[in-house]
Amino acid sequence: MDKLLNPKSIVVIGVSSREENLGKNILKNLINFEFTGKIYAVGTKNGSVFGIRIYESVLDVPDKIDLAVILAPARIVSSIIENCGKKGIKRAIILSGGFSEYEEEKKEIENELIKKAERYNMRFLGPNCQGVINARNGLCVPFPVMNKENFPPGHVSIIAQSGNVGILSAYLISKQNIGVNNIVSIGNKLNIDEVDFLSYFIRDNETKLIFLYLENIRNGRKFYDIIRKSKKPIIILKSNISPLSSNVAMSHTAALTTDDRIFDAAIKQAGAIRVKDLDEFVTCAKIFSMPYMQGNNIVIISPSGGYCVIGTDNCAIHKFNLPSLPSTLLNEVKKYGKAKVIKLSNPIDVGDIYDANAIYKTVKKVSELDNINGIVLSMFFSPKKEIDRFDTPFAGHDTEVMISQLKKLTEKSNKPITVSIISVVYDIDNKDYELPLFSSPVEAVKALAASRDYFAYLNKKEGKLLNDLKVDLGGVEGVLKAAKKEGKAYLGREAMEILNYYGIPVEMPEISTDIQSAIGYANNIGYPVAVKIHSENVLHKSDIGGVMLNISNDEELRTAYKKIKDNLRASSTPSFQLIIQKMVKEGKEVILGVKYDNNFGHVIMFGVGGIFVEVLEDITFKLPPISREDALEMIKEVKGFKILEGARGDGPYDILAICDGIVKLSKLIGDFPQIKEIDINPFIVFKEGMGGKTIDARIIL
Amino acid sequence: MDKLLNPKSIVVIGVSSREENLGKNILKNLINFEFTGKIYAVGTKNGSVFGIRIYESVLDVPDKIDLAVILAPARIVSSIIENCGKKGIKRAIILSGGFSEYEEEKKEIENELIKKAERYNMRFLGPNCQGVINARNGLCVPFPVMNKENFPPGHVSIIAQSGNVGILSAYLISKQNIGVNNIVSIGNKLNIDEVDFLSYFIRDNETKLIFLYLENIRNGRKFYDIIRKSKKPIIILKSNISPLSSNVAMSHTAALTTDDRIFDAAIKQAGAIRVKDLDEFVTCAKIFSMPYMQGNNIVIISPSGGYCVIGTDNCAIHKFNLPSLPSTLLNEVKKYGKAKVIKLSNPIDVGDIYDANAIYKTVKKVSELDNINGIVLSMFFSPKKEIDRFDTPFAGHDTEVMISQLKKLTEKSNKPITVSIISVVYDIDNKDYELPLFSSPVEAVKALAASRDYFAYLNKKEGKLLNDLKVDLGGVEGVLKAAKKEGKAYLGREAMEILNYYGIPVEMPEISTDIQSAIGYANNIGYPVAVKIHSENVLHKSDIGGVMLNISNDEELRTAYKKIKDNLRASSTPSFQLIIQKMVKEGKEVILGVKYDNNFGHVIMFGVGGIFVEVLEDITFKLPPISREDALEMIKEVKGFKILEGARGDGPYDILAICDGIVKLSKLIGDFPQIKEIDINPFIVFKEGMGGKTIDARIIL
Repeated sequence: MDKLLNPKSIVVIGVSSREENLGKNILKNLINFEFTGKIYAVGTKNGSVFGIRIYESVLDVPDKIDLAVILAPARIVSSIIENCGKKGIKRAIILSGGFSEYEEEKKEIENELIKKAERYNMRFLGPNCQGVINARNGLCVPFPVMNKENFPPGHVSIIAQSGNVGILSAYLISKQNIGVNNIVSIGNKLNIDEVDFLSYFIRDNETKLIFLYLENIRNGRKFYDIIRKSKKPIIILKSNISPLSSNVAMSHTAALTTDDRIFDAAIKQAGAIRVKDLDEFVTCAKIFSMPYMQGNNIVIISPSGGYCVIGTDNCAIHKFNLPSLPSTLLNEVKKYGKAKVIKLSNPIDVGDIYDANAIYKTVKKVSELDNINGIVLSMFFSPKKEIDRFDTPFAGHDTEVMISQLKKLTEKSNKPITVSIISVVYDIDNKDYELPLFSSPVEAVKALAASRDYFAYLNKKEGKLLNDLKVDLGGVEGVLKAAKKEGKAYLGREAMEILNYYGIPVEMPEISTDIQSAIGYANNIGYPVAVKIHSENVLHKSDIGGVMLNISNDEELRTAYKKIKDNLRASSTPSFQLIIQKMVKEGKEVILGVKYDNNFGHVIMFGVGGIFVEVLEDITFKLPPISREDALEMIKEVKGFKILEGARGDGPYDILAICDGIVKLSKLIGDFPQIKEIDINPFIVFKEGMGGKTIDARIIL
Repeated sequence: MDKLLNPKSIVVIGVSSREENLGKNILKNLINFEFTGKIYAVGTKNGSVFGIRIYESVLDVPDKIDLAVILAPARIVSSIIENCGKKGIKRAIILSGGFSEYEEEKKEIENELIKKAERYNMRFLGPNCQGVINARNGLCVPFPVMNKENFPPGHVSIIAQSGNVGILSAYLISKQNIGVNNIVSIGNKLNIDEVDFLSYFIRDNETKLIFLYLENIRNGRKFYDIIRKSKKPIIILKSNISPLSSNVAMSHTAALTTDDRIFDAAIKQAGAIRVKDLDEFVTCAKIFSMPYMQGNNIVIISPSGGYCVIGTDNCAIHKFNLPSLPSTLLNEVKKYGKAKVIKLSNPIDVGDIYDANAIYKTVKKVSELDNINGIVLSMFFSPKKEIDRFDTPFAGHDTEVMISQLKKLTEKSNKPITVSIISVVYDIDNKDYELPLFSSPVEAVKALAASRDYFAYLNKKEGKLLNDLKVDLGGVEGVLKAAKKEGKAYLGREAMEILNYYGIPVEMPEISTDIQSAIGYANNIGYPVAVKIHSENVLHKSDIGGVMLNISNDEELRTAYKKIKDNLRASSTPSFQLIIQKMVKEGKEVILGVKYDNNFGHVIMFGVGGIFVEVLEDITFKLPPISREDALEMIKEVKGFKILEGARGDGPYDILAICDGIVKLSKLIGDFPQIKEIDINPFIVFKEGMGGKTIDARIIL
């Protein structure tokens, strides 16, 4: 990537001096942005533009070229790449659209591009993108004309599957005095994709925050693995989340829709922060330009009582505390007041203080308290230059000075101090201040929550994986091989055996062909027993009367046997066998499983049975391998957790037994990745300390 | 209110020429805002400020005064009000703080104020507020100095329990070219409150949109009734929603916390729009300055493919459709394109069109389609004056002209056309354009959803109330009287009788004192029966083994009787009786009820029994009286509705029977408002068409 972002020489292909030519805009951008390398141009006609000579072929350029930027009709891009290859160019950016995002048949041209690049050992970006802007060296290759002032150099790197969204997001943070390092637009990402740039920016010293706008991902698992390694905050805006959008995204960047629940779970597990629009990204960029929020304790300071209440509501929403403040501190603050008729606590309502310096001193005192982790300040504004014009509340003092003092204070105290301006009299241009400004305490508290959560993630101890579990791998292999020999794609009883090998408790079922063997088996394991149909064609066994529970003697077993057979005949279920299984003691049904996602591969799944999974779709996912701590997080994440904790005097249930099952499933799928899916449904979990048991399971190969 | 907002003469009390005096700021504001009435000043010392004479007493002012504005220490406000009364002043605004919001003991002064105002037939605003700003006549009485430019006259009226929040919200919309009519700050609202202003602004011809910032409400039911009558959109930001906030709000405007779920349900039922911050208010102000969104069909138009995808995601989130567009239209649009390599559909990706006029024509054509209700346009920007400086995509055309054309188009087409600007090169000052601008398609689609929903509310047919139900009111009265005589505050079996009078089906329980009478009754009603403990001290009867179900003969009944007695002895439950009740057929448990809220009075409640109510707190509220349509809305609102509709082949259940029960409860509480609460728990609803039955109920008087 370094060669792509820091070329010493560049050629722009597709330039002419005609008015409507977009290629020459790229030259203009390179000149405006004061690109530090050499610039060459290629077009169909010899000539010159902005004093740069236009060659008819890249082969004519009398210099070594590090990077080619191509803006030419789709049908000729392949031959241009060929020439670039011959010229020895190793990096290219293809801006042109009109590929597979426009019509399916263009896939052929795309495949040709991929092959040619391979042949010449070339990496390329695009097609159908806006290329890159490197604010450090002036490499600016989008074809709309850009203004350098809007891209001050900074430490945010942006990876965007839409050129305009990428550029706009950089513009929005620049308005908050947050500069950009690189912006890359990846378009149809035939060769270079988000994963390549992500790896690069995670290592890059100039990048402190990474923002991604994505419409799809190429390889979810790789994406996850890379994010997980990052110690820098990664903010993701992922669109194309509805069936309605999939056609639109397809014709924008040929992007396919993925399961958003799994995407969401995966990036959360990897520590990335998902935002739902660019405003939320800007909020994150602002807060992550400050020290982390290292705990839960906030002090709100505002001269607006209303904002104190609103701020407090939002602290409650985000589960922050507002600790009481020492009375010595409050008494000192009270002295700054005028009428002294406002009750001081936390929030500190400074509506009575008409002196910006006194407010600064208040903030400073608060920031020195050990138990306070962050400050939410909402202020009126009075700029120095305007003090004479209006007799503002802060006449004689000025908030401008205060803001720059606060900038130093947030660094010195190593605590985030968020400032929002109650701007009644003046338009505030955030660009004038070094400190980012928040629109209100609502935004500030939300931002502090993101910072706190990311800090907690960074400091979370990595859970121990179940590597030391002793498993008879040979035994499992034997079961799988036997199944393979029989051509089975679906394992029922064998699934229970495999779980058993991993120490996941199962209530082993016995398949019986006739009532005599059933009675024998029942007497062996002891009553009460359950009888169920054993058929791969029946998904919901009880719906067709294929399940009888709590059978307590031979006589009842005979009756049950007959009844099920009658039921099945009535519902014209094809040939079947019956299963005898010991009844387990009472507990709660939960569902554990491993799903296979086309993008992320194996995914561990958990949910509480019944209404929670079936009606509320209340399930949670994590990517393996997972630790016991991860498993516990999964269990606590679902709404059904309340049931397991115990509701109305019932419970608690054995949550550790579920954790145990989940980590063992994770180990199992790690050992045998040839298994596609595992479904433990139901796993009955007993009361706390009593364990649990798999009642039914299946494995799909 | 008119006298308060449109006085012909005003006196400001608390003025001096000292530098730190805030009273003189009020005079300055009145002068700056060019107040159309006469201005007088009163202070402790004779003198003058800004050429206005300061009298020592209001009684000295040689003119009739319509309105007094008081900014003086809390302890002397009462005597000032006395003098104002003597002077014959009928309206006052008390700005001073330091009342009950500061310390509980100040309640006394407040009570004195209330009494004095009554004696002199005076209405007053405050104390502890910022008073009013009337942008039409220049009445501007807050004590911070204001800038007239920030309050252009318009049609939004603002009622705020926090002066600064009210002023700030006016300022924010003025940046979007939306003017304000009146801003009123109500503070501790001892005499005039939100309800007074709300009634006034609903009638006021200059007000087209009302915004309220509230920390509490004085009389929820009155508030609800007034909002319900409004045909103007009412936007509400309600803070003080968490226990954490209640102390803060108390010391801000002496506001008590109310049950937010009921507040939320009530204002939704009344058609108000609740926002969670000022940004959302601004979004509403923007969209309600345009024609309503009269349906579900949107067209998205943008040169950014990324914004097309993001816009589509948000249409899916807000349940909008993106209808296909006629190919004739798309073909015409395609002609405007340059490279013609973008697939056109809906969204229309105009990334290939470099002509603002062509985009205007596209929007116009779309707006003429009968089946399209609103348009989401996201554009690049190129201002006319800057075209020469930058060679923008729209060189030779300009979006400025387009925006003013679009303003006319949205009015002519009677459809909302939302514009957001992808502002890469320029800072856009929304103040320069008549049309409000949205920050992105995300905000635009959210805004259109609010407009659609409000339009649907305005056009919703009022459901018919159950006025023609024939009830033996005398019978109900008899039951209530008998209970009163016995000193009962809680009705069990009598509750069932009362429900029966209203035609709410009940399974009548029989109280039996001995096993013989129980057996007699069971044989009378027929087995199977249930036996339950009848005790007012036991809330969850089954938890202590006080319930036995499905008893099918005399023998089982004897056993059950004994077992319950043993259980109750074991849990040392005090004296009790037993109930015999016929077992009803299988169905789903739902809960119907009437709750009493201190603020809103009677509230109808509904939820699906079991996990939904007990674990997920999945309940819904509406204020009576309610129609069958309202009841159906309630049922559909809860998550548990899925169960009633039928899940996994079970159901559907008799939803109309629940509706029937709800409307009858509503009628019952209307007829007998002396009843405090009614609890039908459970009501068993049978399969569709089979009705339902009350199994247990209680009434609290």
